[in-house]
Order: sequence, then C-alpha cells, then structure tokens
Amino acid sequence: MFRFSDRIKDLSGTATREILKLTSRPEVISFAGGMPSREGLPCDVIREISDGILKSDLAPTVLQYGQTEGRPELTEQIVAYLKRFDVVAGAENIQIVSGGQQGLDLLCKAFVNTGDAVLVENPTYLAFLQIAKTYQANIVGVDADENGLILSDLKSKLEKYSPKLLYTVPTFSNPTGKTYSAENRKAIVELCAQYGTVAIEDDPYGRLRYSGDDVPLMKTFDTNGTVVYVSSFSKTVAPGLRVAFVCGAPEIVRKVSIGKQGADVQNPVLCQLIVAEYLKRGYFDKVLAQNIALYKTRRDCMLAALDKHMPEEVSYTRPDGGLFIWLTLPERIDAAKLLPAALEKNVAYIQGCEFYADGGGKNTMRLNFSNSDERRIEQGISVLASIIKDKIKEQ
Amino acid sequence: MFRFSDRIKDLSGTATREILKLTSRPEVISFAGGMPSREGLPCDVIREISDGILKSDLAPTVLQYGQTEGRPELTEQIVAYLKRFDVVAGAENIQIVSGGQQGLDLLCKAFVNTGDAVLVENPTYLAFLQIAKTYQANIVGVDADENGLILSDLKSKLEKYSPKLLYTVPTFSNPTGKTYSAENRKAIVELCAQYGTVAIEDDPYGRLRYSGDDVPLMKTFDTNGTVVYVSSFSKTVAPGLRVAFVCGAPEIVRKVSIGKQGADVQNPVLCQLIVAEYLKRGYFDKVLAQNIALYKTRRDCMLAALDKHMPEEVSYTRPDGGLFIWLTLPERIDAAKLLPAALEKNVAYIQGCEFYADGGGKNTMRLNFSNSDERRIEQGISVLASIIKDKIKEQ
Repeated sequence: MFRFSDRIKDLSGTATREILKLTSRPEVISFAGGMPSREGLPCDVIREISDGILKSDLAPTVLQYGQTEGRPELTEQIVAYLKRFDVVAGAENIQIVSGGQQGLDLLCKAFVNTGDAVLVENPTYLAFLQIAKTYQANIVGVDADENGLILSDLKSKLEKYSPKLLYTVPTFSNPTGKTYSAENRKAIVELCAQYGTVAIEDDPYGRLRYSGDDVPLMKTFDTNGTVVYVSSFSKTVAPGLRVAFVCGAPEIVRKVSIGKQGADVQNPVLCQLIVAEYLKRGYFDKVLAQNIALYKTRRDCMLAALDKHMPEEVSYTRPDGGLFIWLTLPERIDAAKLLPAALEKNVAYIQGCEFYADGGGKNTMRLNFSNSDERRIEQGISVLASIIKDKIKEQ
Repeated sequence: MFRFSDRIKDLSGTATREILKLTSRPEVISFAGGMPSREGLPCDVIREISDGILKSDLAPTVLQYGQTEGRPELTEQIVAYLKRFDVVAGAENIQIVSGGQQGLDLLCKAFVNTGDAVLVENPTYLAFLQIAKTYQANIVGVDADENGLILSDLKSKLEKYSPKLLYTVPTFSNPTGKTYSAENRKAIVELCAQYGTVAIEDDPYGRLRYSGDDVPLMKTFDTNGTVVYVSSFSKTVAPGLRVAFVCGAPEIVRKVSIGKQGADVQNPVLCQLIVAEYLKRGYFDKVLAQNIALYKTRRDCMLAALDKHMPEEVSYTRPDGGLFIWLTLPERIDAAKLLPAALEKNVAYIQGCEFYADGGGKNTMRLNFSNSDERRIEQGISVLASIIKDKIKEQ
C-alpha cells in the first residue's frame, strides 16, 4: 500500500540484527555480535564524570542545542589522541558523529550518486554493505590475502570503475580479524590518490592489540586528502554513548557536517563531554589496558578451543587483535544452513556470506570472542565443532 | 578536486546555522534561533535522574549497544503520553529518533526517490527543505491562510504531482506560529488518504500553548496510516538530549527502523532512559508549566513591543503558542538586506525567504521570543523597528 523509495523498499533488517535479537536470551552463547564485554564497561568512572559535568556550570550547555561539528572540548582531545598515531589534524579536520557507522553513512551521502562504484574488500563490514545499498551504489569487491588488498586487483578495479570510494578496515578487520601490512597500506593510498578515489580507513578496533607490533595508520601515508579516517569510542570506551569521529580534508569534513546538519543536527552534548573528560583525565589507557588483558585471554581461549575441537578440514584466522576470528569450512558446507542447528543448541554466530558484496563466502562464519567468558567460549566452540563434524560426516 | 555527490555538492550550510554562529556572542540579542530558554532547562532534575540510572543495575546496559527501535522503557512512556492526545499506539508504531529532524530525514529516506514530489506549506520549516533537497525531491509549495492549508490548492497539487509526502507543522507552525483548524486537519487527512500521499504531522511545539483551546492532532483523524506523527522532547525537556520519536503505521515504522540501522544504529541509551524516567516521575508537566508561564510572558512582551514600535505598514502574527512570531514588511522591502544593519546593532533574526520552497517571502522575517528576557526583547524590537522605519523612509 505505501509507496516506499527504491533504496529501501526491498531492504529488510540485516541478518545480524535479527540474529542479535535472538541472542538476547541469557542461555544463548553468542559469538554473533561485536559487542565489548559487559564486565569491561567503565560504569563507575562514567557515572563520576557525568555527575561532575551535570553539577558544573556546563549543565545548561549540555541540555541546550550545540554545534553540528561537535563540542570543542572533545575535538581538542581527539586532535591530541590522533597525534599519538602521527596523524596531524586540527579542528577543521574533525567531525563528531554518532557511532562510526554514521561517519560511513555521511561519507556515502557526500560522495555516492545512484550507480556510482564503491570498492570494498571481500569480505567486509556488513553494515557498510547495507549503507552503500541505501545509496544505490554499485558495490564491487576487491580480492585480499593475509597482507591486505591484492594490489593488481585493486588497480584494475580503480581503472575499470573509477570508484568514488574505497572502503577498508585495515587493522583487525571486521570480519576476518586480519591487518594490512605497512607496504600494502602505502601502496593502497598511492593508487587511490592516482585514481582520485577517496579511501575510507575505518578503524574501530586498532587499539585492541593483544600481540604483534603496531602498523602505521593508512592516514599517515596520505599527502593530499585521499584518506578519510573514521574511528569510534564504541569499542574502547562504551558503545551506548555513540561517540565517534571522522578525520579528513577540510573540504570533505565540511560536506560531512552539512550532511549531519540535515541528518540529526548534532550528537547529544552530554555523551560528547563524557568522552572528552574520560580522555582528558587519562582513563582511556588505564581502562583499555584492563580490557585488552581480558580480551587477550578470551582470544587465546577461543583459539585453544578451536585447536582442540575443530576437525582438520576447518581453518581459521589467528588475529593479533580486534574482536573476531574468521572460520572457513570445507567448500561444500553452507554456514547459513548450520545456523538453525546451532541456535537450537543455544550457540550463535554470523554466516560469512553476509560480509560479501557478491554473495560469496558461503562456507565461512564470523566468531566474536570479546563478549563471552572462557567457560562459555569452550562450551560454545565444542557444540559448534560437533555440529560441523556431523555435517562433514553426512556429506 | 573531490568528486562530491549531486545531492550535496552545491549545498552549503543553511543560512540559519551561519546566523546562529554569529549570535553566540553574548552582546547579540538573538531572535534568530528556535532554542528553549536556557533558564528553563531542568538541570537539577536531569542530574538527579542521570545519576540514579548510572548508579543502578542498568548502568552496563546504558553503556552497551542497544536496540535500534529504542529502549522499551521510553517507548512505554511515549505510548502513555500519546494516549493523552487520543492517539492509540503500541510499541510497533514507535521509533525513537535523534531529534525530530532525524525522523524527517528517515521518512524522506523511506519514501523519496530522486525527482519525487513532496508538498510543503509555503512557508515551512527550513531544515525540512534542506533535507528534501538532499533527497533531490521536487519540492512543491502549497498555499495557506490563517486556518491552515488552502484545500483547493492542496487537492490540485495532490492530483497534479502524486506526491509521496506532504509535510506540515500544523500546531504553532515554524515559522509562522499559526495553527490549522480542526476542520482543515480533517480535510487534509482525507485528501491525502484519497491520493495515497503520506502526511507528516511534525509537532515539536504543540505542548507550548499560552492561550486559546487545544485542537485535535491530525493523527487522530487518521483511519488507515496516512498520517505519520513526529514529535520531540527538544522543546519540552531538553534539546541537547536529542530524544524524539516517530509514530506511524507499523510498515512505515519498520522502514524507518531499517533506515536508522544504517544511519546510526541507535540513540544513546542514557539520553533515552533520562527522558523515560523524566516522564515516568511526572516532571514533564511540572517543568513544562513553568516554561509555559515564562514563554507566555515573553510572547506577550514581544507582541507589546511590536505594537509599540513597529510602523503600521508592518504586520505580524499573534500566535497562541510555540516559539515564533512571523513579521511581514511592506512588499518592496527585502528582509535579507536589512540583516547586516541589524547584526551591526547586535540584533539577529532569520529572513523569511529561507522558509519558502520557491524563494518567495522576501519581505518577511521570523522572530523567536523564547530565548531572550523581557529587557532584551523590548530593546531588540525597538532597534529592529528603527531600522525598518529608516528603510521605509528611504524608499
């Protein structure tokens, strides 16, 4: 009966959101989401900071309308934060957004016309695929290996499609957990600059390193505004606050701001000031160190459980950080078809095909290790392995 | 250098946002914005509520990811709130959004293809014009008088353009302050239903009544889902929290939710729970009554100042509520051209042409009375009147 737009009429909610609804039952061992650990959320610190702000002279400012660009106290802290990673930025380079996802949405809004090509790694963050679909982009997958994007494939697709955007999660990627090498990053930036394609470096997980050495941000190889860096405090402070930022060339940030004026005017001021004060008082590194220790234990626990229970036909990534392990089944097995049996035994994951622009990856799945304790990880992987073994035997 | 999208490449920030930046200087008497009074913001109550939430067992839930649809505690309060205005709704009818403006943006996302017609009252809320432009809608103005839309004009434009949406602010309109009559509302809903056009009833100001009798919401005349009601707690609780909602047919709300999944996943949980608790504990009516008394005084003060200072060639609305008075100059005078002189004398307003789909209304201006005290209102109107008188003499 209703005449919905072409962009949305055939879109249903992502499979992930639907699976996440199922996993809200406490008996479910969920490897499906990408949530920080509940125990690791800094409730006391945030209460203390929030109360301080609302007791201060800033209280009416917190409750009144504010600037679209974001609160200057937060921008200042972000500029200092970026300096630690050798990114030189000023206020004109920063737009505060409501979760990294809004940054991605507003970048598509600023660049993508219907039918414009957008390159993504195959596989990639599924919400970006959903966003690019609402902008009716022509989404093209680029092949990748353990070092990053395959440069010959990237070059030929830059040449063929003249894409407006390349979307990447180069550090502890969602969904695979892998990290692009420094050489790969540098070459990607140079190629994108050559072809006039803006490269989005989405970095929600970069601070969550459990082993190995830091790799320079893609943004540090940028000499002319080719790279837009998007990062979020969802995985390092608290996702419920919805505080993230876009860092890019002033011309791009200005268009993102205009897009945000129309979209929602501004982020809530209280949440912005909470994160600003959290950074300023030095809680960021302190709390993060505790969470890194927790997540490292959980990653190690999941890898040990996989090593112990999975049949040898199954392979998986061994990420140095982030929240995810990526599992590959024998080619003939469809991970989506195993999901009902897994859910029946109260174990959830996301089927890997959701992360592919072209519907590939049917024999893959994404496993999250941050939000389950060791006992549940061991138990859940054991259940999953037995379902997979049964399926292998069946065929 | 950058290849921006067609929707955004020629958009600059709205004139309003630019004027608002100028008016942040304390010496400026600003009639430009649409902000609640700073003194009326319930800082102490919100601190108490916020602290209680962050001290409770809900704290980790506040900081973790939540549902796109919104927190059930808030939806429940909104359902009860709507009942007071004879709107029957359940959770399936409600989507929490980040300010009413996000509701408008997501409704355009759900309905408007490039080139689709969208009807608006002439003049209308300028941010809706900006949003509709980013969706590349064909924006068509409908004539109006003091009772609401002119039905013959509405009918002929529904017939001619088969618009996807009609956008209205029927109660204490932004920018004119006027209210559509009950008969006019009923007829609008029936006409829209007949032509399959969804009518947006944007109602941020409806609770701010200082005189006269309530008029039924347009939504109460709706029998088949034609009307989508959008309202916000920005003008009644606090704009900085960015809490608003869309109430409509479940099919429409579902599409709005899918749009929000892509746009920003969810509103911050803390702000949602603050508003839920604020409603639950009954602060809403108590604090609102104080603000209504304050705003009534300021409206009366501005009307008295206009009566005293303005030359007789100038006319203006006498609104029963809301935040704005709409002033009409002699036809030959361009309100935009008076603005530099007014700003030089530290008085700001918005030129009326900003609110017209077709660039009309050059001899009009919008005056906000909620955010200046009586002394400043009297002084600002006196300055404005002398500038207008000088201009009239000049010509």
